[in-house]
Parts: sequence; structure tokens; C-alpha cells
Amino acid sequence: MNLILLFNEDFIEPNGRVRLTGRRLKHVREVLRVSVNDELCVGLVNGNIGVGRVTALDDSVLEMDVRLEQAPPLPLTVTLILALPRPKVLRRVLRSAAVLGVKRIMLLNCFRVEKSFWQSPFLEQEAINEQLALGLEQARDTVLPAVTLCRQFKPFVEDMLPGLIQNTIPLVAHPAAEAPCPRALGGAATLIIGPEGGFIPYEIEKLRACGCALVSLGERILNVETAVPALLSRLF
Amino acid sequence: MNLILLFNEDFIEPNGRVRLTGRRLKHVREVLRVSVNDELCVGLVNGNIGVGRVTALDDSVLEMDVRLEQAPPLPLTVTLILALPRPKVLRRVLRSAAVLGVKRIMLLNCFRVEKSFWQSPFLEQEAINEQLALGLEQARDTVLPAVTLCRQFKPFVEDMLPGLIQNTIPLVAHPAAEAPCPRALGGAATLIIGPEGGFIPYEIEKLRACGCALVSLGERILNVETAVPALLSRLF
Repeated sequence: MNLILLFNEDFIEPNGRVRLTGRRLKHVREVLRVSVNDELCVGLVNGNIGVGRVTALDDSVLEMDVRLEQAPPLPLTVTLILALPRPKVLRRVLRSAAVLGVKRIMLLNCFRVEKSFWQSPFLEQEAINEQLALGLEQARDTVLPAVTLCRQFKPFVEDMLPGLIQNTIPLVAHPAAEAPCPRALGGAATLIIGPEGGFIPYEIEKLRACGCALVSLGERILNVETAVPALLSRLF
Repeated sequence: MNLILLFNEDFIEPNGRVRLTGRRLKHVREVLRVSVNDELCVGLVNGNIGVGRVTALDDSVLEMDVRLEQAPPLPLTVTLILALPRPKVLRRVLRSAAVLGVKRIMLLNCFRVEKSFWQSPFLEQEAINEQLALGLEQARDTVLPAVTLCRQFKPFVEDMLPGLIQNTIPLVAHPAAEAPCPRALGGAATLIIGPEGGFIPYEIEKLRACGCALVSLGERILNVETAVPALLSRLF
């Protein structure tokens, strides 16, 4: 935790006094091992970053005075569209996307996504936000990504995708593609990553028909946890 | 599993008949759901890739005839030196490095590595090789990376590192560095990644004195699972 993410309800005085309990208190006490008067890196969700000076600390509560004067890091100009991965993988991928600065994530159904994945409790908004917050705290960012669930492939590709890709470079990561993934795009992208086993030919055709280019990172077939940072770091 | 990794002891006839049991049999039956005469992508550890045609299959054993005619993908020309991460993270990072094509991994002690991490059963060679094999099977590669444990920072940096970095570009991933991580190096690299919380100033100085350049991926502080693919994909 390189930044403690604060929420509006943490503020007990409008001038910037904050009270923490629960997970964040435990982390501050047991991992960061702070004392009164120590300063911590903090940030308000969807707001500025700054410093919190600890004014009170015991087993059950920490209070600090915070100043929030610095803007968070710039976001990546990408919409990340992922075939819904299995639940355990989903949690790590959400966290990793948040660490990397992705602000718009869409989870997509397709033929090779197991139907049971859509029943996972990890898809509840609270569970998603928990992983995203962990990513922001790691990366020292505050801007919570928006995650959208797209439960039907065809309506998504036909009705939503054309609007989403406007003014972006739309790419489908596809191990069998001949074109290498471009480097340092210098502009906005829409990045689409398929399921384990890949998109089926019908899906690839629908994505191509919409204007997406197929790109590859080489001969090796990457798992989605590895592909997300590898692709984003290549593109941005 | 995009490739079934074979070992010499799997061969029951020198002309290329193989017998599988255990984890690989279970995967082939339950996930790939193959039948007799189906063909599977296979590869001999540290050898060629090819095709296995299933000749017999029941609850307890699968036999296939294999032809191994294709060379595995080219390796990344990198030595990856990682401050030893916590055991659960280590497993994922080993797997991810194997997926990406790293063939030489060194796990390094330093000030912010918790001593208990060195006691982990996940550091036993068999446990390490299990994760590496999973990575190779994902990536369709056969060449098992070599993993070395370096339990003392100072002797490593003073005695081993100068030889390791010869004819390579030696880089330390350091979030506070001013220089951005270069793209598409076009040559061999030695990539050093610190622990959670980073290398301490003494360690950074030792690495610099050895000739390593400090590079950053930007303002965000990446966790090691995210940093490894992000850095490798940028460099190669």
C-alpha cells in the first residue's frame, strides 16, 4: 500500500481531519508501523493526492490531518475490453489494470467464456471495487476505473463497439495474428483481449468487420494476467 | 495448457511412443476432452515441439505417438534478477517469466526481503519447476528456465553481477528514476527488479557502482507481478 485511499465518509471534519478503521488501520499499524506525527501518502478517491499527518492512533482508530494538493497520475487513454476470465484470475487482472492506470474496463461474454463465471460473487460491484482500490493503493492513484459487464457478445459488438472505438485505435490481441502489436501508439486505443483458448472465428470476423486490427505479441501464447501488462506497456 | 510438456521418462518406446498419467492425463481428459486419434500439441522439455496422436486412452493412462520436428520459440535475451518476492507472488512471477520466454532467473536477497521468504517450500527445485512447466505449457515453449538463489546481496553484486552484465544492457527498475525505461532494446539485457518498498539507497548505490542504469515506467508504482511483463514487453 503506497497510498491510503480515502473516501468522503472518512472525513470527520470538513477542514481535512480523517478517521480510519478496519483494513486500512490494520495495514497502517502492522505493516507501515506508524506513530503519531508520522506522515503518510494519502489520496481521496477520484480526487487529489497528498499527505496525512497522524494525530491520534490506538487499537481501534487512527486520525490524521490531510492536505490534498497534488493531482493523481494521468490515466492511460485506453478502453480495455476483456473476455470475462475465471473469477480468481479476474480479481488479479482488475487489480493489475488499476495499477497500470486503465480507467475503463468492459468484461465481455463470448463463446469460450464459461457461463458459470457470470455467477461469481467477485462480479459484485463491491468486490470489483475492492480489487480496484488495492490497485490504486499500489500505484499511488485515486481515480477508480469504471467496470461494465457486457453479457452478450453480438449486441455489444454491433451496437456499442462502433461508438467506443471512435477516435481510438481498435486492436484485438490475437496470438495467431501476423501483425505485431505496435509500440508507443501516441494516441487513444481500444484493446480487446479474448478468453483462454481465444475468440472463435465468428467472433474474430465480427470484430474485424467493426474495424478492429488483429495484433500479436509473438509466438508465445500469454495468459491474460501476463497479456494485460505486456500489451499496455507496449502500447503506452 | 496449449502444449503438453513431455519428459524423457514419459517415452516408452524410443521411436516416439509416450505414456502420460497424473496431472497431464487429467487435463487432457477433462479440459481438452480428447479421444483416440486426436492430435495434441506437445513438446519435449528442452527440445522440439510437435504433434502427438492419441493411440490409447482410458481412466488411468494415455498413450500417443509423437513427432517433434519444430524448434521452440526463441528465448528472450535477458537475465531477470528479482528481489525474492513473498511466496505466493513468487509462484505467479515464475510462471509469468516462463510464459514470456525468460530463461535465466536469479532470486536475490536484499534489505527489504523478509527473511522468512527464504524458508518457503515454494523455493524447492521441484516447486519452482512446477510453476515454470505451467508457464511453458501456457506459452507453447519447452526450454526450462534456470533459477538461481542468491542469498547474499553484497557478494552477489560484487562478485557475480559484473560478469553477468557483460555484453548486456544492465537496468534496475526503480520507480523514482528519472530515465524512462527504454523500448525495443535490440540486444541483451540484465533486468533487476527490487522488493516491495524498493531497494534501499545503499543497494541502489552498489548497483549503480556496478554500471547499472536506473529506469522507470512512470509515476505509478507497479507490483512485481505487473512490473515483470510490463518491463519485458517494453524492452523486447
